[in-house]
Amino acid sequence: MKYVYFFGEGDKNMKTVLGGKGAGLHEMTRIDIPVPPGFTITTEACVYYFTHDNTSPEGLKEEVKRALNRLEKHMHKKFGDIDNPLLVSVRSGARASMPGMMDTILNLGLNRNTMDGLIKNTGDKRFVYDCYRRLLHMYGNVVLEIPHEEFEEILTELRQKEGVNLDSELSSESLGELVKKYEEIIKKHGKTFPDDPVEQLWGAIEAVFRSWNNDRAKEYRRLNNIPEDWGTACNVQAMVFGNMGEDSMTGVAFTRNPATGENLFYGEWLPNAQGEDVVAGIRTPHPLSVVEKERSNSSLPSLEELFPDTYRELCAIREKLERHFRDVQDIEFTMEKGKLFILQTRTGKRTPLAAVKIAVDMADEKLIANEEAIMRVDPKDIDLLLHPMIDPNAKVEVVARGLPASPGAATGRVVFFSEDAVRMKEKDEECILVRIETSPEDIKGMASADGILTQRGGMTSHAAVVTRGMGKPCVVGCESINIDYKNKLFKKGGTTIKEGDEITIDGATGRVMLGNVPKIKASLSGEFGRLLSLADRVRRLGVRTNADTPHDAKTARDFGCEGIGLCRTEHMFFGGERIKAVREMIIADTREERERALAKILPMQREDFKGIFRVMDGLPVIIRTLDPPLHEFLPKEQAAISELAKKMNVKPAVIEEKVRALSETNPMLGHRGCRLGITYPEITAMQARAIFEAACEVTKEGIKVIPEVMIPVVSSAEEFENQRDIVEKIAKEIMKEQGIEMEYMVGTMIELPRAALIADEIAKIADFFSYGTNDLTQTTFGFSRDDVAKILDSYKKKGILSYDPFQTLDEKGVGELIKMGLKKGRKTNPKLEVGICGEHGGDPKSIDFCERTGLDYVSCSPYRVPVARLAAARAKIRNSR
Amino acid sequence: MKYVYFFGEGDKNMKTVLGGKGAGLHEMTRIDIPVPPGFTITTEACVYYFTHDNTSPEGLKEEVKRALNRLEKHMHKKFGDIDNPLLVSVRSGARASMPGMMDTILNLGLNRNTMDGLIKNTGDKRFVYDCYRRLLHMYGNVVLEIPHEEFEEILTELRQKEGVNLDSELSSESLGELVKKYEEIIKKHGKTFPDDPVEQLWGAIEAVFRSWNNDRAKEYRRLNNIPEDWGTACNVQAMVFGNMGEDSMTGVAFTRNPATGENLFYGEWLPNAQGEDVVAGIRTPHPLSVVEKERSNSSLPSLEELFPDTYRELCAIREKLERHFRDVQDIEFTMEKGKLFILQTRTGKRTPLAAVKIAVDMADEKLIANEEAIMRVDPKDIDLLLHPMIDPNAKVEVVARGLPASPGAATGRVVFFSEDAVRMKEKDEECILVRIETSPEDIKGMASADGILTQRGGMTSHAAVVTRGMGKPCVVGCESINIDYKNKLFKKGGTTIKEGDEITIDGATGRVMLGNVPKIKASLSGEFGRLLSLADRVRRLGVRTNADTPHDAKTARDFGCEGIGLCRTEHMFFGGERIKAVREMIIADTREERERALAKILPMQREDFKGIFRVMDGLPVIIRTLDPPLHEFLPKEQAAISELAKKMNVKPAVIEEKVRALSETNPMLGHRGCRLGITYPEITAMQARAIFEAACEVTKEGIKVIPEVMIPVVSSAEEFENQRDIVEKIAKEIMKEQGIEMEYMVGTMIELPRAALIADEIAKIADFFSYGTNDLTQTTFGFSRDDVAKILDSYKKKGILSYDPFQTLDEKGVGELIKMGLKKGRKTNPKLEVGICGEHGGDPKSIDFCERTGLDYVSCSPYRVPVARLAAARAKIRNSR
Repeated sequence: MKYVYFFGEGDKNMKTVLGGKGAGLHEMTRIDIPVPPGFTITTEACVYYFTHDNTSPEGLKEEVKRALNRLEKHMHKKFGDIDNPLLVSVRSGARASMPGMMDTILNLGLNRNTMDGLIKNTGDKRFVYDCYRRLLHMYGNVVLEIPHEEFEEILTELRQKEGVNLDSELSSESLGELVKKYEEIIKKHGKTFPDDPVEQLWGAIEAVFRSWNNDRAKEYRRLNNIPEDWGTACNVQAMVFGNMGEDSMTGVAFTRNPATGENLFYGEWLPNAQGEDVVAGIRTPHPLSVVEKERSNSSLPSLEELFPDTYRELCAIREKLERHFRDVQDIEFTMEKGKLFILQTRTGKRTPLAAVKIAVDMADEKLIANEEAIMRVDPKDIDLLLHPMIDPNAKVEVVARGLPASPGAATGRVVFFSEDAVRMKEKDEECILVRIETSPEDIKGMASADGILTQRGGMTSHAAVVTRGMGKPCVVGCESINIDYKNKLFKKGGTTIKEGDEITIDGATGRVMLGNVPKIKASLSGEFGRLLSLADRVRRLGVRTNADTPHDAKTARDFGCEGIGLCRTEHMFFGGERIKAVREMIIADTREERERALAKILPMQREDFKGIFRVMDGLPVIIRTLDPPLHEFLPKEQAAISELAKKMNVKPAVIEEKVRALSETNPMLGHRGCRLGITYPEITAMQARAIFEAACEVTKEGIKVIPEVMIPVVSSAEEFENQRDIVEKIAKEIMKEQGIEMEYMVGTMIELPRAALIADEIAKIADFFSYGTNDLTQTTFGFSRDDVAKILDSYKKKGILSYDPFQTLDEKGVGELIKMGLKKGRKTNPKLEVGICGEHGGDPKSIDFCERTGLDYVSCSPYRVPVARLAAARAKIRNSR
Repeated sequence: MKYVYFFGEGDKNMKTVLGGKGAGLHEMTRIDIPVPPGFTITTEACVYYFTHDNTSPEGLKEEVKRALNRLEKHMHKKFGDIDNPLLVSVRSGARASMPGMMDTILNLGLNRNTMDGLIKNTGDKRFVYDCYRRLLHMYGNVVLEIPHEEFEEILTELRQKEGVNLDSELSSESLGELVKKYEEIIKKHGKTFPDDPVEQLWGAIEAVFRSWNNDRAKEYRRLNNIPEDWGTACNVQAMVFGNMGEDSMTGVAFTRNPATGENLFYGEWLPNAQGEDVVAGIRTPHPLSVVEKERSNSSLPSLEELFPDTYRELCAIREKLERHFRDVQDIEFTMEKGKLFILQTRTGKRTPLAAVKIAVDMADEKLIANEEAIMRVDPKDIDLLLHPMIDPNAKVEVVARGLPASPGAATGRVVFFSEDAVRMKEKDEECILVRIETSPEDIKGMASADGILTQRGGMTSHAAVVTRGMGKPCVVGCESINIDYKNKLFKKGGTTIKEGDEITIDGATGRVMLGNVPKIKASLSGEFGRLLSLADRVRRLGVRTNADTPHDAKTARDFGCEGIGLCRTEHMFFGGERIKAVREMIIADTREERERALAKILPMQREDFKGIFRVMDGLPVIIRTLDPPLHEFLPKEQAAISELAKKMNVKPAVIEEKVRALSETNPMLGHRGCRLGITYPEITAMQARAIFEAACEVTKEGIKVIPEVMIPVVSSAEEFENQRDIVEKIAKEIMKEQGIEMEYMVGTMIELPRAALIADEIAKIADFFSYGTNDLTQTTFGFSRDDVAKILDSYKKKGILSYDPFQTLDEKGVGELIKMGLKKGRKTNPKLEVGICGEHGGDPKSIDFCERTGLDYVSCSPYRVPVARLAAARAKIRNSR
């Protein structure tokens, strides 16, 4: 077993053994990038160390010694040599990047003797003392486990005593004093700082190994699903110094702009400085290029101006690295006395906006294949790009946190009632509607408000679903606030926010902030469209949308949807005149009265459908018949009941009685969906009439209509058959009346476990299935999505569930039912069209499942359409590899 | 194809072809019972008739002619002969008995000419005219399709004109006039009554075929699941007359007493009479035997006395028929001028009581095998035997009908509140608790009342489940009544029933009656116990019980249960001091406060378990940890909240806030079952402590305890693991403390679809599964059992569901999940114990499913245990055939 690799012996594909940092250094060495030489001790050595009682494997010492000799020869210096000492750094580097989580020690090899040699060589006593005090500090803390604060305290005292602000202003005398005090601290703890450089080295190596198991590293791994047994590699590298005078400098750079993605070398540097200084923000860094200097209005000279040769060399390295690694690189460089070194290269982190541009540009430059470009952009980022975002540089005062239900940031005055939101909208004032929870009655207020904040509810609560459909910012389940409707205020701890106060909510993070927080609005850049076109060429899954209005349908079509997968007709039942007729229908005691009320709704509903059909010209439109229990349409509070009674000219007791009669213990499992259509066939008939009359009339306008009628909450073939018969009868009647022939389909939601279990029976008489995974998740788990927030919260904390099954499809349970339903359904009806229209239709992981399972399409809210297009393409690529 | 069978050519096994009646006649002919000769036209001819545009198959006419010739020879009479006419009857007879649903025509062969011959032969003009007018009436109605009422009207007019009450009092002259009027009616309708006897015969045969499709026959088939395509056979038989003078008579008999099952010939007869007269109730029939005469205090001479030879002959036939058919026979006989004929034999219908006695007796007599005896008794009847029943002879005034939720009849004064029921009980007065619906708060009232009536709820509503557990009569979902709690009354139509009024409810039929209706109490006769012992020897499935108290456990053990399959601990949380401590626990804000409250509950719960363990000595006891959402334990009404607040020394607002915080939109899918135990591990810990402390203490008394702890509402292996770990930790602790080692199990309910879907994962760490089919049915169908009544009602009416899936297991959907769970569970844990503890555990059809599927046991309410024992044996026999 080989435990030590000299830089260049390994390559970029050996991350498992060399860690990410190590692999980058080896690879750069291989392709002749000027990297200070060094060697990597493998992760396997680290794993051995942990599994063998913190002892090193046999032969490791010997290997390290040989590598160190080789390094000495390379550098023409000797480790521990009094005249010409070699200094080294020891750095961790795991397979996956764990920035800042593990330890680093610099300047190893210094001691009272070698310091003199170094002073002689550099002529800079202060610099050498500075190196030494840093070594004592780092070694004392990391290896000898003396609290960091004890060193920090003395340093602070010293600065105060000297009357300076920065460590760099301390004189070499002060530093000499500091070094003594540091040595005393170490002694006080009964520890010894080893003078022997080899002993220093081994102390550092083992400390780096152990840092794999410090608390913050463990927590980071838990959060990022990094296995515990990977271990870290350890890189021992010759020190180079950017602070050896005016012909030295240090800096960091991105091969392209990580914020915008622009193909422009981007970076910062400091003359006569060490690496940390650039990021520490103590001195203002210089721009890299002249262009950059101009853009940032910097008065400091650029590298291009001061060191044109070095700049050219760096540009060539940039070119070489990008071409070699085929991605944006984040590099660190140091120039020691005119000589340029690259200390690190890694894939550069970027903003969502930049990710898109870089991927498309690199595909254009033929640096990467189209499919690779698609795989480079995380669909989650796409979602953020479509909404205004909180300016990352803004100062914010967070008062509470809820669940990030619908992305985007919004600012407005607090209102608590829908009517107030409507009133604000009329006055063109921005507002945030704050409710304990929302119900269909709030729909107008939600449409008027600029953002929604609720105290209760989960990621798939009414508020969450509706606002995502509207593409409107929403924070739900903000349990820590206390809403007082009566006094029109809410409290959080000691803070009281009243009606009219200005707040900002961030639907991407769940933050609730005071005042108007600055936002940035990202636009649909050209690259964005081009990326999605690439995705469209690749993907197999269709992408439809869940839209209930012509406006939403238009939004979704602009975002590239290929049809409507779910048009919920009940949302059309609210608002003005409609709700009145709907309530008349519900209050009705006889079929005749019901039909009279339905006749009033018919023309309105027909107009809704006409609008949608026009927008979706040439694309299929799935319309679901009435789904929610009727009591959702009745008022609940006494005042509203009295008002309705007056309007309808009946006694309040009549309405009260109806509300009572219709109330249900578990409305989710109650009289809804096809069950309504079966007990009141006239409702289904009216809806079918509205759909087919609209379809015929719009067809006459020269528009191509492809209607698909969907029956909800089906648990048996008999239920479906009953409703299908009503729809088909009406469809034929109307097409005959209007003299129009058109293709149409009648299909069903699969949203109850039983429907999946007997899918073969249903598929015999159904044209399509659409998995309603929201409800299917509810019944499969026995979770009510209105009540589940606090359960999921505690489950996540206890590690019982690692994800929210209402956001990401539960493959083991719900997914099993989907697979079973698909298999059984296609067995009796090979032409069955199968899609998914739950919230999961817009979730990338769930879309991957749909691709693997062989569904025909996913359907999601309009603002999720671009996400789904990209995710579908990625799923196709991933699963055909 | 042979379409006609002369009596004796077929046999009793040919019901498919000859129909039930035909097969009986053929068999009797074969074994030399004196049957008037005749022949059967097969069901196949009938089916041909329907499938070929109402035409007879080729050759049928010829076959019938040959059979008729043979009949003439037999009878020494000729069909249509003027001097010595043969008369025949034509009767339907399908594979399955459909009593009174299809048509019969008697006296075929009579016309103006043959009448004279018959008058000459019998010397009884009146009798012959009577036969003829009956023929005209029956033929006119059945064949010529003239409304029955038109004949009836004229007959009534004639009786009025003659001033007589009975048709039999009409003179032959009047009958002659009647005949003329009947002929006129037929003419008026443009129809002709055929003089030609052969034409009469064919008209009758085809009419009998067609009667298969009349409305009442169709409805009967729908209700009894008889296939539409079976068709009926048609029996053509020589007429014999019991009304040819004093040496003629007619009667019906059962070979054993059909009410008690006693092995005693039982029947009635009338001298000089026709068959209909015996059942019509116009004349009082005579007893068959001297014993019967004495028992019934009849003054009429018995057949044994008047016709001792005929009686002896009949006794011999009785013996022969029973021995031959190996079951009680229901026979019809006629003596024509001293000669005895048997006109029909069929299996005798019997009361549940008789069914048990007959089966056991016949097994004792070696007439049938033990297994056959088991198959002879319908388990549904057993249920009725265990409860008092409404006297079938009692006159009742039914005011309303609900669902028959828990069998048995009860009478008492109406009360509307639990406290009133308790007060009545204290005064030893009988009462019926009438509620819109019941909740756990009503438990004491329900225990005190003699019967429960609810306006809402289905067969598995709270009231239904609890009363079945108590073995107490209950009618639920009586939607037609209107309860007014304020005025303490309920209305049904115009009737008002006030508090204190006496009513009787019949939980076996759902009837609600005014006053005290007489009841009969059937006892557990010796035969009953013996039948169940036979069943126990045969069955494979274990039978456990759902019992929450030592009292219920005792009842069930007396009924032969083999363990407790479900002990619901939450029922122990109500009542007096307990509910107070439970509420303290719920109101608690911290874990410490909760633990303090739980510590008060612990000793009480421990005592409960000790009581149950003692009763179940040597048998396993499955105890389920807390299941319902906590809000069920809190009061809902303002007054109760205030009272509680006072008791607990907090402000009412504190309680209100807690009630609000705990309220859920869909409590069925809410914070319940293991979810409670996961968020409040101290509850599970307390319950585990109570169970194992009780088990150890009782073990020290020398009792064998086999505890099995069951975790409810599990949807993932992680949930189960979390709860199992708590239970196991406590169990080990306590056994160590007490120095006792015992076997115990920890398992889970499978009551959510997901649990069945991932059963392989759960089974790895679970000792047993128990299917909670109530909840599994709810989530699989998406039906809330509290709300489903009206949906199921409309579904049954529309033929969408033919049964209540909460009573009989849905094999296609829920059953599929059960099979899947079992298969997956046994795959990873071959020793897994698997049972069912939903309501279905006491339903015979569902038990048959459990047998076929390979479950280990069923568990049902105590009063269902005998039913389940029998049903399990029957299922074993049925499925090993």
